[in-house]
Amino acid sequence: MTNDSEQPPRVLITTVPFAEENALPREMMNEAGIPYLVNPIGRKLKEKELIEMVRPFEVIIAGTEPITAAVMDSAPNLRFISRVGIGLDGVDLLAARERGIAVSYTPDAPSPAVAELTIGLMISLLRSVHVSNTQMRAGKWHRYFGRRIANTTIGIIGLGRIGTRVLNRLAAFGTPRLLANDILPNYELDRRFKLEWVTKEVIYQEADIITLHLPLTGKTYNMIRQEELKTMKEDAIVINTSRGGIINENDLYEVMLQGHLAGAAIDTFEQEPYNGALCEIDRCLLTAHMGSMSKDCRERMEIEATEEAIRFLNNGEQEGAVPDAEYEVQLGL
Amino acid sequence: MTNDSEQPPRVLITTVPFAEENALPREMMNEAGIPYLVNPIGRKLKEKELIEMVRPFEVIIAGTEPITAAVMDSAPNLRFISRVGIGLDGVDLLAARERGIAVSYTPDAPSPAVAELTIGLMISLLRSVHVSNTQMRAGKWHRYFGRRIANTTIGIIGLGRIGTRVLNRLAAFGTPRLLANDILPNYELDRRFKLEWVTKEVIYQEADIITLHLPLTGKTYNMIRQEELKTMKEDAIVINTSRGGIINENDLYEVMLQGHLAGAAIDTFEQEPYNGALCEIDRCLLTAHMGSMSKDCRERMEIEATEEAIRFLNNGEQEGAVPDAEYEVQLGL
Repeated sequence: MTNDSEQPPRVLITTVPFAEENALPREMMNEAGIPYLVNPIGRKLKEKELIEMVRPFEVIIAGTEPITAAVMDSAPNLRFISRVGIGLDGVDLLAARERGIAVSYTPDAPSPAVAELTIGLMISLLRSVHVSNTQMRAGKWHRYFGRRIANTTIGIIGLGRIGTRVLNRLAAFGTPRLLANDILPNYELDRRFKLEWVTKEVIYQEADIITLHLPLTGKTYNMIRQEELKTMKEDAIVINTSRGGIINENDLYEVMLQGHLAGAAIDTFEQEPYNGALCEIDRCLLTAHMGSMSKDCRERMEIEATEEAIRFLNNGEQEGAVPDAEYEVQLGL
Repeated sequence: MTNDSEQPPRVLITTVPFAEENALPREMMNEAGIPYLVNPIGRKLKEKELIEMVRPFEVIIAGTEPITAAVMDSAPNLRFISRVGIGLDGVDLLAARERGIAVSYTPDAPSPAVAELTIGLMISLLRSVHVSNTQMRAGKWHRYFGRRIANTTIGIIGLGRIGTRVLNRLAAFGTPRLLANDILPNYELDRRFKLEWVTKEVIYQEADIITLHLPLTGKTYNMIRQEELKTMKEDAIVINTSRGGIINENDLYEVMLQGHLAGAAIDTFEQEPYNGALCEIDRCLLTAHMGSMSKDCRERMEIEATEEAIRFLNNGEQEGAVPDAEYEVQLGL
């Protein structure tokens, strides 16, 4: 798990998988002569595990595990966190700033992969692909009726890097009505797309397909509970490829059990690995947090985060420093 | 199953489902005062069942069941076959012509639905969506690596109504290399797409994704057997939303069992309902002939085929008469 160096490791790589398809990030660390340790548990770490593991390290090349104030207090040498990916909900940015720990991320790398998966999940849900696939193996042949994207109203909540890419790809399918919501509406998009900027409540009530492309923050946590789910159309479809916890999973289970919603695709969960009640709902399409898991995007994320860690250790420079806006989100501004 | 008329039924509607989501086709028949019978068996009919059922009828509003010379010889009053959909492999066109039985079809109606499903299946296969969905329910959490459309070479065999629509939708995903094959290459497409017109063999060998949009004919039956499958890349993906029988199902099973191919999506089968060996292969995504099953396309197909049947019975006119080219295909020309 470590490289050949005799020195004590300086970098803890917690993200899983790491350098599995392309060994380049490991090679980069070896060439830079930086000793490292790769997460020996092989799955997303819990806070307690991280606290026990983190003490000697100066840098974490991080996944989505909780890097809390308590973790930082257990790591007296920690100076830098390099996130492989975009979501910062796992990192207590304010605690990091107080302790002089710098944080970088790779916000662009995963976007194309997440957007493409989102379109695929949308079509699977509209056409009951996952349901038919399961039934065929149980000897059941039923030709499900479906809908085409061109006959649906699509509501996108979050029009950042990923939501915008979803829009780009939808254009080829002919979407008659596009509803958009963001805390900071990007009206530049109106030049290229016919968007209706509406409240989240309008999206819940009027969209046939609701797709979330939001960070997990104090404001988005449990943003969609029974109350919101019940205002959605009975045959609406909900997709979450952003962050677990934004939709309350138990509430989603309850309303779907009662027959509400035509389908849901959930790729991210409040606790991962996920093994909860949604597994009982056939029309809920479940995937193991694979939004960013295209080989090219994952490689780019790992390489960028590794480069950033090496740069930081060599001369303290950051190219992907997390901007102030992300700190403000955590401040609740 | 019949309408209220006291007269003996004149039209046999064999396609399943029929007028299930939208009752309009039945209402049209009722308003036109044409007595009809809807397939009482409720699934695709076998030749023998059709022979026993068809005797009194003048018109068949047909699905994909075999309308052979023997069926026609059991139907002395049969004058017209109105196919709900595009494929004519079930209809012996030459036997129909010899007996003075006219044939119409609705070739445009299903195309958008089939093309959209094809893109959805492509993304599901590239990202192992169906595999992860099955594993999650078995308590297994594995983050599969996948590929994006933008990093694959796509081979389209058959650039007619559906293949062209697949191309249109792919454009939004950024495909670096598009290989195309058709008996009659449509070079008009080169104005809009950067296509390489190549042989089928080149597609088998060089494409990462191979998608079929062909009719089933004497020439395409079992066009892809072990021999062809083995020339494909080990991690290639194959999609068949056109007609069962074009890929030999047993051969596909054998090569996939041996670990060849990253995945396959099969929506059409030589015998339907399908319940064969491919159900054992997890990375084979199976759907119950649902390509045309979007509500809007299915409705349009049923309405067009019903209108055509009414027109024919009222004044002998056809708007969707099957063109000579389709007869020539069956002649092997």
